[in-house]
Amino acid sequence: MKFGGTSMAGTERIRTVAGLVKREVDAGNEVAVVVSAMAGETDRLVNFCREAAPDFDPAEYDVVVATGEQVTAGLLALCLHGMGTPARSWLGWQIPIGTTGRHARARIGTIETDALAASLAAGTVAVVPGFQGRMDDGRVSTLGRGGSDTSAVALAAAIGAERCDIYTDVAGVYTTDPRIVARARKLDYVTYEEMLELASVGAKVLQTRSVGLAMKMGVRIQVLTSFVEHGMAPTRGTMIVGEAEIRELAMERHLITGIAHDKNEALIMLIDIPERAGNMTDIFRPLAEAQIDVDMIVQTPTRGDGLIDLMFTVPRGDLAQAIELVEANRDKVGYDRMTHNIKVAKVSIVGVGMKSHAGVANTMFDALAARGIELLAIATSEIKISVLIEEDYTELAVRVLHTAYGLDAATEGTDS
Amino acid sequence: MKFGGTSMAGTERIRTVAGLVKREVDAGNEVAVVVSAMAGETDRLVNFCREAAPDFDPAEYDVVVATGEQVTAGLLALCLHGMGTPARSWLGWQIPIGTTGRHARARIGTIETDALAASLAAGTVAVVPGFQGRMDDGRVSTLGRGGSDTSAVALAAAIGAERCDIYTDVAGVYTTDPRIVARARKLDYVTYEEMLELASVGAKVLQTRSVGLAMKMGVRIQVLTSFVEHGMAPTRGTMIVGEAEIRELAMERHLITGIAHDKNEALIMLIDIPERAGNMTDIFRPLAEAQIDVDMIVQTPTRGDGLIDLMFTVPRGDLAQAIELVEANRDKVGYDRMTHNIKVAKVSIVGVGMKSHAGVANTMFDALAARGIELLAIATSEIKISVLIEEDYTELAVRVLHTAYGLDAATEGTDS
Repeated sequence: MKFGGTSMAGTERIRTVAGLVKREVDAGNEVAVVVSAMAGETDRLVNFCREAAPDFDPAEYDVVVATGEQVTAGLLALCLHGMGTPARSWLGWQIPIGTTGRHARARIGTIETDALAASLAAGTVAVVPGFQGRMDDGRVSTLGRGGSDTSAVALAAAIGAERCDIYTDVAGVYTTDPRIVARARKLDYVTYEEMLELASVGAKVLQTRSVGLAMKMGVRIQVLTSFVEHGMAPTRGTMIVGEAEIRELAMERHLITGIAHDKNEALIMLIDIPERAGNMTDIFRPLAEAQIDVDMIVQTPTRGDGLIDLMFTVPRGDLAQAIELVEANRDKVGYDRMTHNIKVAKVSIVGVGMKSHAGVANTMFDALAARGIELLAIATSEIKISVLIEEDYTELAVRVLHTAYGLDAATEGTDS
Repeated sequence: MKFGGTSMAGTERIRTVAGLVKREVDAGNEVAVVVSAMAGETDRLVNFCREAAPDFDPAEYDVVVATGEQVTAGLLALCLHGMGTPARSWLGWQIPIGTTGRHARARIGTIETDALAASLAAGTVAVVPGFQGRMDDGRVSTLGRGGSDTSAVALAAAIGAERCDIYTDVAGVYTTDPRIVARARKLDYVTYEEMLELASVGAKVLQTRSVGLAMKMGVRIQVLTSFVEHGMAPTRGTMIVGEAEIRELAMERHLITGIAHDKNEALIMLIDIPERAGNMTDIFRPLAEAQIDVDMIVQTPTRGDGLIDLMFTVPRGDLAQAIELVEANRDKVGYDRMTHNIKVAKVSIVGVGMKSHAGVANTMFDALAARGIELLAIATSEIKISVLIEEDYTELAVRVLHTAYGLDAATEGTDS
């Protein structure tokens, strides 16, 4: 079981969490719990570090910020004791959760589970602070922001857990954003691949890295909400599993699993670029070096005049810097002019079903064209088709596609 | 160097502390620093534990409250880096500082200093969170409230430090409370024994336990203030050393080193107790079992009628419980009546000089009698004489005694 920062925000919330853990124990399960810091606490600690030294040493930063999860781990163990459920905290260095790489963005290596497993087998709940581990030299490390999901998946894999239940402030994964489409349905199952595509295009339920790790390690994840009446059972959430498991269940699935959207895009267009080997490198390498995440890239076909146009998207917050970096190479690249558009959005349809079906894309283009929504760019992967449109049409496009692919629930707000 | 909670209260204060540490490093010293949590932080964490479970497991309490010092240790290391001074934090379990006994009130056992000493010798400041250690089973432990002074003294002993400088919010140890006597003088030197007596009667500069440990281990302590202008040298404080060192310095010392007072006393009187073996046990054992700290005890001599009177003091906060416990045994003890007085204070004169001088007590009694101050009780030790008086006379008594023993500075507020 993993609980995020909003689930751990204060002792009253932690007591509710303890109630959820106790339910699982009382049902006869061995339970390890991974916890985040109280909502806001990590920011408070990071600010202390920034105030102490603008260029802070990541090893000492780790010492400071790892305390947030240490506090909630101890408090959850205390709440469980208070309910008569045996529990103890296991800090990252106590298990230990070995990490490699750099401080403040460490990767999980080997997790020694002998002592932990013995304690679990003896009926004691293990409460583990997420986000932290121990470097080979014995120093405290952290995994980077949002790393607690990854801690939970890695621990679940190491102890061979049947399931990794990740409690959040949403009830599960939906066919699309319920704030936009009232008839969005909560999904019972999605595949890892679908979850990755849904996450990477704006449906941010889980940290992308944790889903990738779960896929690699075969850890079955359930996303569900911790916001239940005290003492009540949680509502069933969404299982994130491999395609094989879904096939075994022989469930009839929709061609498309969900519709995602992302308003964090900004478009840059370079007009009349001379065709020259190396021009692409001169444009994109400076962006990569500045760690600017270039997403969609579309190049026009050669028009015969030796000139092409190029269009790509970057995160909105990076637009100004991206423009600067491209302009710095203007003479070298030789483009005629640059334009940009910050009022764009990406809408994507995601589903493993589309692999084996032609015509999925056509349905999308037809549905959008019927409403007069212009496509600025198109990008496709095995299980996803994304289009870039004017931002103002985002909600309309999502609703149109949700209906076009038969995802609408019979009644508003139905759960699956 | 050890810095308390007010010295570590926020990053601005921690930067000042880093400046003081840097001065010592730049002067060619190898420096280990022990830090407290930010002022108020430990209370915040203890409250979380109380909210989580009223009868909290001390092992998990330790996990939670030890984070306060972990945060300040990391932040001080960061501030030192920011000033170009090499530093690293060493958590209790990393050194390790071995502890024994019970969680939440552990005692320091063995401190492994090999790695720490090598790091110090390489010119790296060691920043150590106070108050915490590691039990033999690998779990986090804490020493009880105020334990950071003890951590500092124990670490100083383990690494063979030349001096243990304890920075506080006062400039040193004074002949008496400067808020009461404007001509109080800061002392250059006091002995461990004097410091213990001064501390135990209300001049709370250092935790009593740390002074006892320093005496046992022969650690020379300096008490001084961290509240200096940024970049300025700290003012010389008070050295706490053995009697031998003071004799070597051949300093002319006053007969009496200081005057302490304590308004945290409450008086209980039992009138007409039948003389019976076991009566004292029946009175005091319940108090001891309730961990109520009985201080002065005075029993009247036998009057020949088989009845005696008994008078003793307890901390004010424990008065109600003490009365209840004594009343519970009333039939067994057979006393006639009980009275109490919460408006009393203890005033003490302290000094190693009094060992070899008769007449010290007389000076005290005469000076107080001349002002009409009634003595409710008297208690003496080798280097201390305490009297219990009506609380309203406390300040007058302190001033009168400060003058009577020639402690007044030539001018107000002079430093030694």
